[in-house]
Amino acid sequence: MEKFLDYVEKHQNDFVERLRKAVAIPSVSGDPSHRPDVFRMADFLVQELKNLGADVETRDLGKQDWHGTSLDLPPIVLATVGNDPSKKTILVYGHYDVQPALLEDGWNTNPFELVEDEKNRLIGRGSTDDKGPVLGWINVVEAHKNLGLELPVNLKFCLEGMEESGSEGLDELIYKEADKYFKDVDAVCISDNYWLGTTKPCLTYGLRGVSYFHVKIKGPGADLHSGVFGGTVHEPMTDLFAIMSKLVDVHGKILIPGIYDQVRPLTDEEQAIYKDISFKIEELQSAVGNKTNIHEDIPKTLQSRWRNPSLSIHGVEGAFYNPGDKTVIPACVTGKFSIRTVPDMEPKKISQLVCKYIEDEFAKLGSKNTLNVHCTHDGNHWLSSPNHPNYVAAAKAVETVYNVKPDLTREGGSIPVTLSFQSALNKNVLLLPMGRGDDGAHSINEKLDRSNYVKGTQLLGTYLYEVSKVEL
Amino acid sequence: MEKFLDYVEKHQNDFVERLRKAVAIPSVSGDPSHRPDVFRMADFLVQELKNLGADVETRDLGKQDWHGTSLDLPPIVLATVGNDPSKKTILVYGHYDVQPALLEDGWNTNPFELVEDEKNRLIGRGSTDDKGPVLGWINVVEAHKNLGLELPVNLKFCLEGMEESGSEGLDELIYKEADKYFKDVDAVCISDNYWLGTTKPCLTYGLRGVSYFHVKIKGPGADLHSGVFGGTVHEPMTDLFAIMSKLVDVHGKILIPGIYDQVRPLTDEEQAIYKDISFKIEELQSAVGNKTNIHEDIPKTLQSRWRNPSLSIHGVEGAFYNPGDKTVIPACVTGKFSIRTVPDMEPKKISQLVCKYIEDEFAKLGSKNTLNVHCTHDGNHWLSSPNHPNYVAAAKAVETVYNVKPDLTREGGSIPVTLSFQSALNKNVLLLPMGRGDDGAHSINEKLDRSNYVKGTQLLGTYLYEVSKVEL
Repeated sequence: MEKFLDYVEKHQNDFVERLRKAVAIPSVSGDPSHRPDVFRMADFLVQELKNLGADVETRDLGKQDWHGTSLDLPPIVLATVGNDPSKKTILVYGHYDVQPALLEDGWNTNPFELVEDEKNRLIGRGSTDDKGPVLGWINVVEAHKNLGLELPVNLKFCLEGMEESGSEGLDELIYKEADKYFKDVDAVCISDNYWLGTTKPCLTYGLRGVSYFHVKIKGPGADLHSGVFGGTVHEPMTDLFAIMSKLVDVHGKILIPGIYDQVRPLTDEEQAIYKDISFKIEELQSAVGNKTNIHEDIPKTLQSRWRNPSLSIHGVEGAFYNPGDKTVIPACVTGKFSIRTVPDMEPKKISQLVCKYIEDEFAKLGSKNTLNVHCTHDGNHWLSSPNHPNYVAAAKAVETVYNVKPDLTREGGSIPVTLSFQSALNKNVLLLPMGRGDDGAHSINEKLDRSNYVKGTQLLGTYLYEVSKVEL
Repeated sequence: MEKFLDYVEKHQNDFVERLRKAVAIPSVSGDPSHRPDVFRMADFLVQELKNLGADVETRDLGKQDWHGTSLDLPPIVLATVGNDPSKKTILVYGHYDVQPALLEDGWNTNPFELVEDEKNRLIGRGSTDDKGPVLGWINVVEAHKNLGLELPVNLKFCLEGMEESGSEGLDELIYKEADKYFKDVDAVCISDNYWLGTTKPCLTYGLRGVSYFHVKIKGPGADLHSGVFGGTVHEPMTDLFAIMSKLVDVHGKILIPGIYDQVRPLTDEEQAIYKDISFKIEELQSAVGNKTNIHEDIPKTLQSRWRNPSLSIHGVEGAFYNPGDKTVIPACVTGKFSIRTVPDMEPKKISQLVCKYIEDEFAKLGSKNTLNVHCTHDGNHWLSSPNHPNYVAAAKAVETVYNVKPDLTREGGSIPVTLSFQSALNKNVLLLPMGRGDDGAHSINEKLDRSNYVKGTQLLGTYLYEVSKVEL
């Protein structure tokens, strides 16, 4: 292991060159004109893995319907390094597609040309999300090959090219291969999230779920002139504002009865975790770009993000939305909001509570318009335990590489693949981030600090050593 | 006058031909590619009026800024027929531009080809709005010329080509020419609105005004991910819904204190007018395309439209508005609503009341976001009197042509030029519609019934005889 850590340190420039080649391929899955580049990126990975002796196969996911046009879906790249029945098998997941990026969006440099600045930040689209972490695993394999060492575990890769565009086809593949390709997997490690802040590594053991709702109110047969009809008909927008003002108060408290009854109570043990987390309110304010935080103390802020539900109103479909003034009475409007869910909220029960509440409140209004409210999709929350051996192994690896105990964090958003792997394989899933909280994953000037890339590669490799020793 | 009425009846096919030629010119002012057609339409009118011996001039209004491109504004056509100082001078206004229209929008026939159907409806864009009425005046002039008769009044035309696109340049011209070209005008007649229903002619003596408001709430520096930030920051959409749900109740009652204090009380005399109006709730339901009317009785419905204020919420700028689901926390949102105003509401006072109320309600919320509310534009209401001699003359003309007393109506929308003429010239303005309530002015399959065109031409001419006899 010492040799491995040393090799990574000494060959870091080679690894940066590998990242440079990967960033140069604009594998934007959300833009059909870049679809050939997404395929090119898959080929690049296949070639890199084959060169290192991995057993590589790709899985065709068929076609995607893109606004009526049929597009080929990029393949899932499956690769195996080592096949020793006496070793554990660790599955690693990553994605090789990226978010769109244009110089005009405000990038300081060409987004598809990796640039290292004076602070040793490797800047380029996909550097941290998620090409850096994917190449981190490949760097680990290369180091072992060149050192003539065997990996301490059998390593399986599952790399997708549609993560930024809804992971189309991935879930089906995972369930289909659960007792085939993924049969011998003992644990899963995903490196596709970020440290909470900028200085301390973390392990992530929980994610919120999300339930999305549409509140549709239908009145007139077509949009009306507000001069001619204002005052004579029930207006859908008036009803919508009346209803949707009753969902959440300005301090973020959800007003739908029964929601909080399902939230798991905070235990002393959990409460204790928040004290040690490295986080400042100023970091939240900097990320938000304003001082409009609801809570002033850190535990409450983190609990609001990680372990309490929240409700956000996203928008209105069917109403006037352009700049300027238009005097229309919209005929049919759909208000959209979502609830971030946490243990032990059940999506079905949430949907029932929400729909019943909205229907009751609408009935109280006495409007002649018609209401339709429904849940358009829900993804469940996910919670692992930092005490699971998979996490204990990862925590040891962090201490070895960074000389610090990792923060134990949860996240407010969802990473659906986490839940898919856990449900389909029934194995522990670990989220082990490489990048920092300020990497700007979906933003302009996305970066991965050189030290995070190098130490991150060491961390992933060290984790494999530690997990090989524990009882899973 | 008998001769005139007879001439119109006998030469109606010539008049329909004139309308056919006018409809064939697609003078869509809102579409730059049709701007040359708007000019062509002005030339057509200039030529028709010159052929009839009118004294015609056009006024160049300069340039229009269209999304950064400079477009020539179509001219105002000014024409004078007769210059006898012993006669009254009547100013008539109309517009020669039209709304956009495409066969694909759902028209049954080519919108720019006048078609007469089996119910003798003349179908085509601009037939009723406003080429039919404009040509009605020209038909009156032609009839008198061909009969060798003098008009009973001096007639002045003011025809614009930008009515459907904000009447750019018109107000300036009216004020500039008030004591020049328009100096001798004794009364104004505008034929650019519609009967209330489909069977009974009307005179329109009032219009509501409109005050438009923007409620801008600013929070984060940029849109946020609702998973990562939901529950930790004050969300502008939550604040907006809280505020805007306090503007109006579902039955149309405005909740802003002080608004109704400024509404002129209903007198017994006014109350009596509503009894005679030819209107059915079914007509409202048919126009609305649903049975979502607030009131069941007719006087209350008409009063809500004509003489009471109303408040409509039009939309939200800055939030998610597309189909589908997006889990964004919008950073800065602007809610838009307007209040239709009536006598004796003062726009300035309304603006003060609205802004103060919203600022106070926002302060009560205790949000850390920032609010900006302001009135983006206001147009005053307008009220004439059906007892004014100009109206009495028009009512007599209706009785002569239609054998029925006209309904005395007001309208819920605004026709800004009405107010401009009244303010600039300080003369009585009469709204004397030609078309029916179901003509579909801005809609597909716009039509003008042949009988409305023919009798309408008779009505406009007869009105000139009647108004020549009264004391203005």
